[in-house]
This record gives sequence, structure tokens and C-alpha cells, in this order.
Amino acid sequence: MAAERDAEGFTAARPLLTDLYQATMALGYWRAGRARDAAEFELFFRRCPFGGGFALAAGLRDCVRFLRAFRLQDADVQFLASVLPPDTDPAFFEHLRALDCSGVTVRALPEGSLAFPGVPLLQVSGPLLLVQLLETPLLCLVSYASLVATNAARLRLIAGPDKRLLEMGLRRAQGPDGGLTASTYSYLGGFDSSSNTLAGQLRGVPVAGTLAHSFVTSFLGSEVPPDPMLAPAAGEGPRVDLTVSVKLWLERVCAHLGLEVQEPHPGERAAFVAYALAFPQAFQGLLDSYSVRRSGLPNFLAVALALGELGYRAVGVRLDSGDLLQQSKEIRGVFRTTAAQFQVPWLESLSIAVSNNIDEEELARLAQEGSEVNLIGIGTSLVTCPQQPSLGCVYKLVSVGGQPRMKLTEDPEKQTLPGSKAAFRLLGSDGSLLLDLLQLAEEPPPQAGQELRVWPRGAQEPCTVKPAQVEPLLRLWLQEGQLCEQLPSLAECRAFVQRSLSCLSPAHRRLQSPELYQVALSEKLQALVDSLSAGGSP
Amino acid sequence: MAAERDAEGFTAARPLLTDLYQATMALGYWRAGRARDAAEFELFFRRCPFGGGFALAAGLRDCVRFLRAFRLQDADVQFLASVLPPDTDPAFFEHLRALDCSGVTVRALPEGSLAFPGVPLLQVSGPLLLVQLLETPLLCLVSYASLVATNAARLRLIAGPDKRLLEMGLRRAQGPDGGLTASTYSYLGGFDSSSNTLAGQLRGVPVAGTLAHSFVTSFLGSEVPPDPMLAPAAGEGPRVDLTVSVKLWLERVCAHLGLEVQEPHPGERAAFVAYALAFPQAFQGLLDSYSVRRSGLPNFLAVALALGELGYRAVGVRLDSGDLLQQSKEIRGVFRTTAAQFQVPWLESLSIAVSNNIDEEELARLAQEGSEVNLIGIGTSLVTCPQQPSLGCVYKLVSVGGQPRMKLTEDPEKQTLPGSKAAFRLLGSDGSLLLDLLQLAEEPPPQAGQELRVWPRGAQEPCTVKPAQVEPLLRLWLQEGQLCEQLPSLAECRAFVQRSLSCLSPAHRRLQSPELYQVALSEKLQALVDSLSAGGSP
Repeated sequence: MAAERDAEGFTAARPLLTDLYQATMALGYWRAGRARDAAEFELFFRRCPFGGGFALAAGLRDCVRFLRAFRLQDADVQFLASVLPPDTDPAFFEHLRALDCSGVTVRALPEGSLAFPGVPLLQVSGPLLLVQLLETPLLCLVSYASLVATNAARLRLIAGPDKRLLEMGLRRAQGPDGGLTASTYSYLGGFDSSSNTLAGQLRGVPVAGTLAHSFVTSFLGSEVPPDPMLAPAAGEGPRVDLTVSVKLWLERVCAHLGLEVQEPHPGERAAFVAYALAFPQAFQGLLDSYSVRRSGLPNFLAVALALGELGYRAVGVRLDSGDLLQQSKEIRGVFRTTAAQFQVPWLESLSIAVSNNIDEEELARLAQEGSEVNLIGIGTSLVTCPQQPSLGCVYKLVSVGGQPRMKLTEDPEKQTLPGSKAAFRLLGSDGSLLLDLLQLAEEPPPQAGQELRVWPRGAQEPCTVKPAQVEPLLRLWLQEGQLCEQLPSLAECRAFVQRSLSCLSPAHRRLQSPELYQVALSEKLQALVDSLSAGGSP
Repeated sequence: MAAERDAEGFTAARPLLTDLYQATMALGYWRAGRARDAAEFELFFRRCPFGGGFALAAGLRDCVRFLRAFRLQDADVQFLASVLPPDTDPAFFEHLRALDCSGVTVRALPEGSLAFPGVPLLQVSGPLLLVQLLETPLLCLVSYASLVATNAARLRLIAGPDKRLLEMGLRRAQGPDGGLTASTYSYLGGFDSSSNTLAGQLRGVPVAGTLAHSFVTSFLGSEVPPDPMLAPAAGEGPRVDLTVSVKLWLERVCAHLGLEVQEPHPGERAAFVAYALAFPQAFQGLLDSYSVRRSGLPNFLAVALALGELGYRAVGVRLDSGDLLQQSKEIRGVFRTTAAQFQVPWLESLSIAVSNNIDEEELARLAQEGSEVNLIGIGTSLVTCPQQPSLGCVYKLVSVGGQPRMKLTEDPEKQTLPGSKAAFRLLGSDGSLLLDLLQLAEEPPPQAGQELRVWPRGAQEPCTVKPAQVEPLLRLWLQEGQLCEQLPSLAECRAFVQRSLSCLSPAHRRLQSPELYQVALSEKLQALVDSLSAGGSP
């Protein structure tokens, strides 16, 4: 399989984006004659993030892109040679040079699936040396994508379906690609749009944005626009000097609001006029560069009303400081009285957008009943996931040469589940989720309507369950390096997330202290765990 | 200036890696005839991260690379056209197409400098439209780099100069570039090496790594190495079957340790032998795949002693679970008794490396007096900066058309300091840092030995200070797009960090509740702030 250039014009992850120990182990396997032993690894997490009861699986698209393009370049091999022992057999480097993923098979949860502890997000099988080498890049591509998608889904659950959510965390991300990943997977998790233009260009994420304080403060008010004339929205009728019209409206607005006409800042107004001339169909005002009530709001209203006379509807306002909930109520109140005063009913329902370090708690406040906020921009607390900035995914060997393998450390948290596995989601007759079942790949799948005995993880006793429906969880995406089915689009995955979340019971879905969703082992898998744990020779 | 391909073969950040509002504002400026107005922005942070008293400035190299390569491609402009109003004047897009940084001048703190709140890390001047467009990518490139460098420097301060620190957070980073940035700037901040191979290849960071549990658990013990023979280190003498020699040594080690010879896991031993055959000069054992005391340690000792007979010195051991401090003491004890028993004194001082979710608190424990730990690997808590995952840098307009600008929001935290500025570090006669002084660019620099009156930020009164030395803080790196001086190498910057930190008083340097280092304004700058704050027309 030839290395492919992806549609982005660059390969997001490169083969050397891996921990050096993957390369030293590669030499170890090779020296032991085991480079081509058939091996299987599973990528999973041990605990749901943020103290919640679910996570979303994400990053599969990036993994598939990485695997299909995987090929060490001469410079890569030369670099490895420079850090490995000088007397390393040159045949090892020939082996590296010839590596590609044509022998690699990947099963995975579809992008945007609900994921639970211990259930593989990815199963990767192929030659031992190679699939070991893939560990770090796959972890890197899946962990953060899944974490930020889950974070976005939580914020969407808090906001409810009607508030519009904008991701705006690019400047707070871990460098360029961190920002791109954050924007992509925040959209997947349920955000409506992103400020990140590159995410729009490369990933098709809807992008949004208007103006910042610097635009407002860059105007003194003495600037003269080269062309202040604006034609009516309908195209008919004479062009109007917007600066003059705004001045007249400012007097009427100030009279209505009980302000002196000198109070609103002239530079801010000039900035609004400039923006309105560039975006008459999409005018938005950022109100808090000077004073919301005494400057931003009257200046905005003057421009919006002047535009309104020409048949243009302003989009709304944005606030970036202070008590956002309280101010939005006051602003809505002013919109209502001004709409009545000047008989412009559309003004009542203009959008109020807010931002400023919004976290889950503040979002809940902004989304409460009676809130007048329409759009919420979230940056830092979305992309940095401050409640838990790492998902802690692991990638563990489960079989080699057809033999199940298990890590039997003295730390029970870190023990692994051995063997090549299948995973199923068992559902009740109402479509509600009962539990996820892990079993050995060779076992027959559970049957709908048939009772079966399973071992919930961590339990001392088995229990019985009778599913009304059984869904296989892991799909085959790459078989011996060949793509088996097209990955759904990002928008399709995003819709799938919301459908999946709606199947989760409220007790499992709630964000604090949820009831823990059960993951269970088949009796055969449990027996294998017991025998390998007890016996000396796994 | 033609777009340059950087040495990494791809441009880390691309022009569209920016918030959409930068592009909408660009259109606003253009429509207002202000695209080419001379403007200056400052990039700074408002509070030191992690509750500490200092930060390190980092990311300049990435910024310079980005700026020198900055050029919108046709596809970029087409994408912007698709999200801007359909009737946008085509001349605007021509303007974008022609943009490059040949009119941009950048002053900045040298890479690795101590940085304090409000002191610009970067001063960027040039045409208003362009330098506005640069906001998001510059913030993205500086913020996380500075944050993780600061985090690394804190961990180095805790560890002391002698412990070796390995960054191993690639799998926990925000995607590929997050990992690369983390590895690069952790090294800058004082780490010794990274597991990230790409950081070695592209940035020259020393890389390190040996083996993981999967390597160990992939061996059953029944494997037969294709070539178990090893020549002596000196090259003289017959080759020896390492498997046979290890078996003999295992019996002696088990007898010494009071273990049955069947207890140590044969698969683990086979893995150690395989690794030793590949790396006889650099053998290291990962001890906790099964049981440290009953398996990992005796297996390691058998292999290390067999290698020792051939003249090879093992490097040491690694632990990845359990009480790392306590285990390392026990292991050192076993090393000592074993060294004495078999008269191999080198065994006493083998390196003990540890990892497993180490944070500042655990690091302090591991670095305490009497600790036998030599090397500490830190991943998650280094790269994700969980104490504060974002530095919160901002990029604010300070002058346009030669006029100082100031954001006069009602939130005093968010007010900015107006005007084009110079910054100086004032030092005492012993080289200790007194304060950082911000003044207007046109003011004469402070003179060593001369008393001056300054306004500490937030103070109601001025104070006087008499510096014994005065250092200008901001250097000119890019003048009208031309590189003015070569950036020092990463290793040079890393050394500079340690020199800089040593000048900071212990009270300012301490990691919890430090004394806050003062940043002060000149009387002229303070007067400008007062007049703009009071007056209606900044």
C-alpha cells in the first residue's frame, strides 16, 4: 500500500510520532525472531472522564488516515539508526523501511459511539513489531479526540437542545493541531460551530465569528469611511450615508434610554458603522469595550435601527465580561422597550451571544429557565478539559501467536482482559441500554430473547440478563490494510452522538454521580481471566 | 518574501488557523480604508500560572517560522470567500492574496526568559488588518509552549538538579502537534529527555526509552531465540549462549534471595533475554509486569549478572506501579546485598527509573533526601498541566496610527496598558531582580545607579527604586519581515532558563504562595493610563 497524502495536504501524524521505546522494542522483537508474530492490541480506557457515566469514542478517522499513510521515510530510519546501538544489524533497518499497514486489521467502535470502561475503542491486529510501533500515535489520536468530544457532549446536555454553542478555544489549545482536533471533535460532541477557520476548511465544521474588542478600540471616531453609502437591502431606492443615519438614530435612542448623546463612545460607534458597512446583512455588536449600558448598547441600537430603515436585520449582540445572565436580561428588556418605542418588532428577538470563561456551572446558570441568552461561546473549559485533561487511554496486548496474553501486575487496576474479543450492547425491549458484554471472539453471539449468565466487572457473582436486542459494537474498518467501509461524515457522526445519548437512561446520563453503566464478561472470558490470574503460565 | 517551507517539511501553523472573526474584522478594516493603518499589538498574560510567581516565555521560534512562511494560498482565500458575504468586493480577496509578513516587526522576550504579568512576550507591529489576523495563531503558538515550559521548570525545581527527568506525555497530549510542542518545551524548561522520537528528529531533543509491559507479556518463555549467542563486550573470547548463562545465574540469584527458582516468570525472563540480546550495552528491566520482588527483580538480576560476566554493564530498572519510593529503597537494598554476594560492585549503583502518574507532590516525595530513585518519567501531569491547563495569554491592541489605544472595559482585570512600550528589568548590585519596568517607547531608558520613581501595578502610590543594573527585555527579531538575529538553539535556551531562574530570589521562586514579583509603570506611562481612563477620548 503506497503512502497516501491525505486531503489536508499533510499527514497529521507521522510514523516517528511515537515513544522511543516502541522502536527499541521493535529491535527486541526483531532480534528475537518475533517481528511477524500475529498480535492483537486493544485500546480502551479504565474510567469515564469528568466523574461522568459515559464517554464518546472519537478519532477513528484520524487513525485510519494515519494507518493508510504509514510508511517510514529514509530520514526516519536514519534517525532511528542514530539513536539505536551502532552495531545494530542493517537488516533490521531494511525491515523498518519495508513496513506498511497492509497486514493490519482494525475493528473499532463507530465514531461517536457511547464508550464504557474496558470496552475496546480500537482492536488492532497484525505483525507484532508493527502493531507495537503503532501504540503511541493511536493513543495520541484517540485519547484527546474522545475526551473533548465527551466534554462537548456534557456541555450540550447542560445547555439543552435550543441554545447555540460555539467552540472558540483555538488560542487555548496545545498548539495548532490541538486546536484543530478540539474544533473537530467539539462539533462531533454536539457544538454547533467553531471559530476555527481551518476546521471549517479542512473538516467542514461550520464556522462563526464577528468582531473583537481590538476592532472596536482601534477606532477613535474621527475616522471617515471612504464610502459610507449603503444601498437598501432590497436593492431598490437611493443609497444612504450610514454615518448620517446612525447619528440621527443615536439621538432618538439616547432620548429613549435617558442618556446624553455624548455618552456613547464615538470610536465604538465608528467601529460598529464600519462593521455594518462590511456586513449589512450580518451586523453584530460587541457591547463591552467601554460601558455596555451607556455606550455599547445605544451605539448598537443606533446602527441596528439605521440598518433596519434600509431593510437589513441585525443579527444581535455579544457580551464578553461581567454578569452575563443578568446583563442579557437587561439587554432583552431594552430590546423590548426599544422595539415598542420605534415599532420595530424584529428588534425584540435579536440574538444575545455571551462568552468569558464559561464552565459547566456557569453554563447551567446561563441555560436556566428565563435566560435570555441565545448563543454561548466556550473556549478554555471546552478544549483544555480542566476537570480532567486526559482520558488515560491504554493500548494493551491481548493475544500473540493466537495465545491470549494478560498483564498480571500486583496493581489490580492495571490488570488487563486477555484474548481476542467481541463486544455487544444488550438492550431492553424499550431500546434502553442494559449492559455491554465482552466475550471471546470464538463464542457465538448472544441471542435476543435468550437469557444468559454474565459476570459484571468487579462483581463476585454472575448475574443473568435477557436482552430484547443485541447490537454488535465493533465494526471492521481496515482488513489487512484495506478500507472495508467508508467512514461516515463528521455531520453524520454528530447526529449519531445525539441519538446514542438519547438511549442512555437519565441515571446513567447525569453528569454528577451517575449510576455506573455495567460492562460484563461472558462466563468463558471470566473463566479465562480466572485461570490466567491463578495459573503460573498465562 | 516568498513563503518558506520549514525544516520540518510542513508548516506547523497555517494562515487559516485563526478565528473567523479575524477574517470578518479584516473585511471591516478593509471596508473602512484602514487595512494598512500602522498598528501594534502586545501579547501577554495577566497572572502567573499554577499559583506560582513566574512563567517562562516560549514559542518564539514557532512564531518566527509561522510569520516568515505566512501567505494565504488560493484555496485559503476561496474558503474565506465561501464564508463571507457573497457580495464582498473581489478587491478584498486580492488584498488577502497579496498579504505576507514583509511589513511586520516583532520584538519579543528571548526564548526561555522569565516572564511576568503584563510584560509583553511579543510586540507585533505592522498593517492593522494583517497583525489582527495574526492574533489567534500567535496566541496558539505561545500560550501552551510557555505554559508547559513553566510547568517543566517547576518540576525541575522540585526534583533538584541531580534527578534525571524524562518527558513521556505524547499519548496524553492534544494530538500530534500538542505532543511535539510538549516535548520541545518541556526540554526547554529543564527536562533531560523525551520519549517522543519525532521531537528528537525535528527538534534535537534527546530521546530515551526502553521497553513496555506489552514486550514483557508477549513472551511465554517457550520461545527459542534464533541466535542466543553473545560475544563478550571487549570482542575477545568465545561467544556465549545467553539463555544458558542466565539460567545458571537465576539459580544463584534465587538462592541468594530465598526464592524458589520456579517463581520468577519464564516469559518475563525470556523478554529480558531478548532485550539484552538486542541491547547488551544498554540493558534495562521493567520489573512490575508480574511481581517485582518474586519475578521482575530476580529475572533482571540473572540477566544483568550474565551480561556482567561478558563485560556488559546493565543500565538499570524501571518501575511503573505501586509505592515507587519504598520499592526503590528495597531494590537498592537488594542491589547492595547482591553486589556484595557476587562481588560485582557496579551493581550497587544501577539506575532506578520510575513512572506512574507522578505529579508535583509525588515528585517531591521521590526527590526527598534518601530517595534511591535516579530517573523520573512524567507524562500526564507535565503535558496536560492539570493544575492550570491554559495560560490565558491575550493579544491586545496598544496603538494604531501612532495613537495609543486602551480597552476601557468595566472589568478592571481586562483593562489594557496603552501605547508602544519598552520594558526593562532592574537588578540590584548582587544581580538579584528588583522589578520589571514598562515605559513608553519614546522615554529614555532608566540608568544604572540613578534613582527613579515608578508606579507598581495596582499600587495607589509611586515608589522609588535605584537599580545597579538595567537590562532591556525585548529584542528585535523580525524587522519588516527580515530576521534580525538568529534564534539561539533549543539547548542554549534551555541553559538560559536555568541561569534566569537562579537570579530569581527564593521568595519569588517558591512554587506555593510566592512573593509576587513587581511589575511597575514609568510615571509617563502611568499618566497616560490615568488620562485615558479618565478622559472620554483615548
